[in-house]
Amino acid sequence: MRNLLFFLLMAFVTGAASAQDGPRRNITVPDIPGYHTLKGDFHMHTVFSDGLVWPTLRVIEAWQEGLDVIALTDHVEYQPFKSDVNNDRNRPHAIAEQKAAELGILLIRGGEITRKMPPGHSNALFLKDVNKLDTTNWQDAFAEAKSQGAFVFWNHPGWKAQQPDTTKWFDEHTRLLEQGMIQGIEIVNYMEYYPEAFAWALEKNLTILGNSDIHGSIYQEYDAKSGLKRPVTLVFARERSAEGVKSALKEGNTAVLFNGNLYGRQEWLKALFGACVGQEVNAAASGSEQHSIFLTNYSDIDFRLIPGKDAMKNHLIYPLDLPAHSTIALSVTPRQLGGPGKLSLPLGFTVDNMFVAPGKKLEVIVRF
Amino acid sequence: MRNLLFFLLMAFVTGAASAQDGPRRNITVPDIPGYHTLKGDFHMHTVFSDGLVWPTLRVIEAWQEGLDVIALTDHVEYQPFKSDVNNDRNRPHAIAEQKAAELGILLIRGGEITRKMPPGHSNALFLKDVNKLDTTNWQDAFAEAKSQGAFVFWNHPGWKAQQPDTTKWFDEHTRLLEQGMIQGIEIVNYMEYYPEAFAWALEKNLTILGNSDIHGSIYQEYDAKSGLKRPVTLVFARERSAEGVKSALKEGNTAVLFNGNLYGRQEWLKALFGACVGQEVNAAASGSEQHSIFLTNYSDIDFRLIPGKDAMKNHLIYPLDLPAHSTIALSVTPRQLGGPGKLSLPLGFTVDNMFVAPGKKLEVIVRF
Amino acid sequence: MRNLLFFLLMAFVTGAASAQDGPRRNITVPDIPGYHTLKGDFHMHTVFSDGLVWPTLRVIEAWQEGLDVIALTDHVEYQPFKSDVNNDRNRPHAIAEQKAAELGILLIRGGEITRKMPPGHSNALFLKDVNKLDTTNWQDAFAEAKSQGAFVFWNHPGWKAQQPDTTKWFDEHTRLLEQGMIQGIEIVNYMEYYPEAFAWALEKNLTILGNSDIHGSIYQEYDAKSGLKRPVTLVFARERSAEGVKSALKEGNTAVLFNGNLYGRQEWLKALFGACVGQEVNAAASGSEQHSIFLTNYSDIDFRLIPGKDAMKNHLIYPLDLPAHSTIALSVTPRQLGGPGKLSLPLGFTVDNMFVAPGKKLEVIVRF
Amino acid sequence: MRNLLFFLLMAFVTGAASAQDGPRRNITVPDIPGYHTLKGDFHMHTVFSDGLVWPTLRVIEAWQEGLDVIALTDHVEYQPFKSDVNNDRNRPHAIAEQKAAELGILLIRGGEITRKMPPGHSNALFLKDVNKLDTTNWQDAFAEAKSQGAFVFWNHPGWKAQQPDTTKWFDEHTRLLEQGMIQGIEIVNYMEYYPEAFAWALEKNLTILGNSDIHGSIYQEYDAKSGLKRPVTLVFARERSAEGVKSALKEGNTAVLFNGNLYGRQEWLKALFGACVGQEVNAAASGSEQHSIFLTNYSDIDFRLIPGKDAMKNHLIYPLDLPAHSTIALSVTPRQLGGPGKLSLPLGFTVDNMFVAPGKKLEVIVRF
Repeated sequence: MRNLLFFLLMAFVTGAASAQDGPRRNITVPDIPGYHTLKGDFHMHTVFSDGLVWPTLRVIEAWQEGLDVIALTDHVEYQPFKSDVNNDRNRPHAIAEQKAAELGILLIRGGEITRKMPPGHSNALFLKDVNKLDTTNWQDAFAEAKSQGAFVFWNHPGWKAQQPDTTKWFDEHTRLLEQGMIQGIEIVNYMEYYPEAFAWALEKNLTILGNSDIHGSIYQEYDAKSGLKRPVTLVFARERSAEGVKSALKEGNTAVLFNGNLYGRQEWLKALFGACVGQEVNAAASGSEQHSIFLTNYSDIDFRLIPGKDAMKNHLIYPLDLPAHSTIALSVTPRQLGGPGKLSLPLGFTVDNMFVAPGKKLEVIVRF
Repeated sequence: MRNLLFFLLMAFVTGAASAQDGPRRNITVPDIPGYHTLKGDFHMHTVFSDGLVWPTLRVIEAWQEGLDVIALTDHVEYQPFKSDVNNDRNRPHAIAEQKAAELGILLIRGGEITRKMPPGHSNALFLKDVNKLDTTNWQDAFAEAKSQGAFVFWNHPGWKAQQPDTTKWFDEHTRLLEQGMIQGIEIVNYMEYYPEAFAWALEKNLTILGNSDIHGSIYQEYDAKSGLKRPVTLVFARERSAEGVKSALKEGNTAVLFNGNLYGRQEWLKALFGACVGQEVNAAASGSEQHSIFLTNYSDIDFRLIPGKDAMKNHLIYPLDLPAHSTIALSVTPRQLGGPGKLSLPLGFTVDNMFVAPGKKLEVIVRF
Repeated sequence: MRNLLFFLLMAFVTGAASAQDGPRRNITVPDIPGYHTLKGDFHMHTVFSDGLVWPTLRVIEAWQEGLDVIALTDHVEYQPFKSDVNNDRNRPHAIAEQKAAELGILLIRGGEITRKMPPGHSNALFLKDVNKLDTTNWQDAFAEAKSQGAFVFWNHPGWKAQQPDTTKWFDEHTRLLEQGMIQGIEIVNYMEYYPEAFAWALEKNLTILGNSDIHGSIYQEYDAKSGLKRPVTLVFARERSAEGVKSALKEGNTAVLFNGNLYGRQEWLKALFGACVGQEVNAAASGSEQHSIFLTNYSDIDFRLIPGKDAMKNHLIYPLDLPAHSTIALSVTPRQLGGPGKLSLPLGFTVDNMFVAPGKKLEVIVRF
Repeated sequence: MRNLLFFLLMAFVTGAASAQDGPRRNITVPDIPGYHTLKGDFHMHTVFSDGLVWPTLRVIEAWQEGLDVIALTDHVEYQPFKSDVNNDRNRPHAIAEQKAAELGILLIRGGEITRKMPPGHSNALFLKDVNKLDTTNWQDAFAEAKSQGAFVFWNHPGWKAQQPDTTKWFDEHTRLLEQGMIQGIEIVNYMEYYPEAFAWALEKNLTILGNSDIHGSIYQEYDAKSGLKRPVTLVFARERSAEGVKSALKEGNTAVLFNGNLYGRQEWLKALFGACVGQEVNAAASGSEQHSIFLTNYSDIDFRLIPGKDAMKNHLIYPLDLPAHSTIALSVTPRQLGGPGKLSLPLGFTVDNMFVAPGKKLEVIVRF
């Protein structure tokens, strides 16, 4: 009914106003020095391939979830609903464009090259004409994407339906890489994380992405209006525009946020942690015998700090939970490390939910 | 990706298995003596009119939310997406049928007769051919629905876009009622409750309904996977089948559950409360000087009991919250009402969230 | 076990460190120009009267809930546990002081003068010696509080146990007021709001307070770690100190936040709304024919804006939900009010959850 | 205020009634054939040692959380608040008894023997006089507990404050075991699970327990009114009484529920899974080519089933989430295992959150 109301008003009435798309729940993941931290999802389906929603709903979902940038990436070669739905592959983007402008969502034109393994599925972003990727040979589709200036990444490299037993890098991928036809890789897709893909990305200098590959409605698949369970590709962009996103993706300025964990190159995660967590002296409880501090998390991300050896020696033996928008109070008696004269006591922690490589967590220093 | 996986498996593989539609969150609203308590929504849109989802998604949403019966009721006269989507009005039901069978959801074929006021919008259920309702005069559409044996109800009678200042019953509605062309009325639509419509229903013997009129995704519109915020038409049916639902609707055996409140005729709500809430003696705390009982809510509905005068005289002066699946302990010293010899002390309460008429709450007796 | 650990470490070990009190969940209610917005609760009980927790637990609860200032106000005349617990009325504050310093919670020494109606119960804050309030006549207790420089307020004036049928202002209260022995009044206590008390406060220039009067544990009584359901007295203080709080209370610089609603004098609520909600132009969707804006709520409070007549004329006919940390997009076509040349279109709304007097809501202007 | 109200009413008024302790949130963990499944916590502190709450609050918390049986187990040798609080070790139980009777909570008299390692801390339940355990030598305390007929278990054997680097079984424990002075062991305490302790329990035939060891308020420590995050000792008792609990503990009829996981001997967990999860045929979707079933979880526990090899061969390749009170639909085409004639297809799964030994999960069969 809500929808119809506004169609009617737009059509028949002299003045119109609206807040029809509901509130956007802003996700607080702070900017880092020199960059906007944009929240993106670059893998989504609509009824124009095998998704179950209309293109505009993807924009409204993105708005409500607090995303900044999305791409509709329907399968180029697979349209199971085509007896009922137009199969022009440029339609989803065209239909969604106006709503995206209204809501300030950056909308990237894309498509999914859907082939059997190798090379499997890949998404091409920043396309000019998606229909031209419907080629007989997959090699031609990648060449066409390149000629349109696309940014291309390998989707769900560990997907069991295509690689039931192993997660393998094929010669075909090497060739695509050498020809400049693939620049990124999903290390998270839907609800799965692929450590092998993360390792390849670091080794071969591929941009990492984490996307939902959503077919149904986003709220149905991921629990309850939380922006931190579903995968998000964090894009560190010098400007908030489609061009800014393209440059950031091509330069590899990304990290992945999924199910409360962050994955990314060390330099980005370190900057991000610094922007999320601050500290101040607790003067009332500090003195010559005790250094006391407050540690505050300004972000929507829950952090957990695991004490290193020095911290444990100072009896910080339990993990420190630092949930979103919370503060913890910490104090140490620095006698063991040199006595009351010591001006600063640096203690090492690892951040339990920040991964700078498969199995390797970010290390940070807290100074008392 | 999930969707595609199963398409592929179905097509190419020798054996197939699935739990692809996710878990159904069962809503506990108990059956009442002689009847199944079915949870229904009889007003939903898809991309075949101005909804934003594919027909099968409505079935999957219903499954996940714990509904038993739904109807897809796209606008007969309004298809804004028809340049991209087939405008055969029988398609949504046909597309959704197989998924409904797989998941055990009762699917009713319907359509929304979408006219200006009077008579406004009405839903026709149990149609045989929806296309035939696309007539020039609205009177012919209602006549066609009747000839197909439909159950017809007036939608959102208090909708501000059609009745901005008043909620009015028109002569046209009287005529439809007299001709047997309208049998029910929405007293709740989307997020609004219309007390006037509830009063008309009681006065004119119309079946009451509460429906979502959903256009977007259900989880996007109603908070977080709760079956009790969104409107549900409770159908008290002698059998769990489309026929059982049709009989129940024609006989007026319904109640409406919306935003934690229940609306319905006294006999149904009384039976439902009796099925939801039970009591037992707390022997350990009862004696000649004190009667103690436990009151248990076996349902997913939160109840709140407001003490009547006798209860207040016994110092039960505060409202009693009895949330879903909880127990409260109550005790009274019945001296004032006749001393320790008295075998039973009946105290009156009103149920704060059960409405048997506009502004009138169900009264219940608790015996100590 | 956690507690014991730290007792042991403090006692026997050379260096100690801790985050033992868990994270503080920061509540975002912004400061207003010239003032800190402190979150306070000035009515709490411990095992030293009829409360069920130890004094330090009140401090830890306050820390975890994001409060800035609390007072332990055990009954002066009522100690049901005194056969097991010390009945020196200054002990609760003394016991809690160190933990308050560690966690940066402002702790005010107080007590509850607990007499039958009139004048009922009153809290005295900023006391020097609570024991001296244990007098035979209630008048002497108030005189003693005054001589100690206390700030005194009337507790739960509408409490049914003392005023079952009416909420009445007695001559005794007039006399206390005239003698400068009462300066404030609770308009919210535990889970009840007293509109009569709010009216008296405005009329007689009393400081308004909303307090929990907590006896059990705070999380047990109020749902799930939410700082917005339980009553909070917002104190607008020129400095973050006990002195700053005392001045603010004496000057009447307060508002009450309870169950998502705000109560207070118009000037404070207007300033607070201005600090919570900001707006920016949506350039992408604005043009000569349409003014579009984003409205953002930077606070933890959910707001709801009800359109006034002008807004409705511009088809903003539905209430606007603006939940915590969300943004809504609004647009109007200002043709009716003077055409495209018009530079600004002010539309009036009332804020549904901000009360500047009983039954009277704050009015705000949104400029397009 | 609520508390005081009822004290006043009890004292001065002729008739009294109450629901003052709030609603009990019933936890659905079904009974198993021949046994009641009681939910217990046998390790709790009050202000009579180093806990921060009054004894009655522990009973009210247990009621609200849906527990059936608890023990207050204050430290026998450690009373940091004794300058303010009575140090008779029998007082906590005596104070809490009446409230336990009112609410139907089974209350077990206990105490914590608090010694340095070895043998560390142990709880003694079903004591007659707790004061007598205050002996100079720890051996005498255990002998006294035995002479009172107590059930004794080793607490938090992996506690880092006592065993920072290793989790070790000492000769002293062997001797206690041989002398019949220790019959159980905590495999979960507060927020930690000790796999070593679970292994010892299975090897040495000790009863397993999981307890909160709560010092603060239970809702403060464990998130938000959930009965499944905090440790619960499930006691399979032939009768719902203190005697029934004692027999069950002595016979080892327990399992531990903690943070969504279950730990226990295979026979108990198998029976429990059978009581929680049922299945029925989905007739509408079954035929000669496909077997379809519904699997329903009737409990408050979320289960997750991991397909075994046969299940994977039938393309059940993803884990099956079966949350509390949900149903999933499953279907297989059993061609590979013998064709359409086959009447039943048993497929193996492991239950991801049920542990029958450290690192070993329960295996179950689903029949299609």
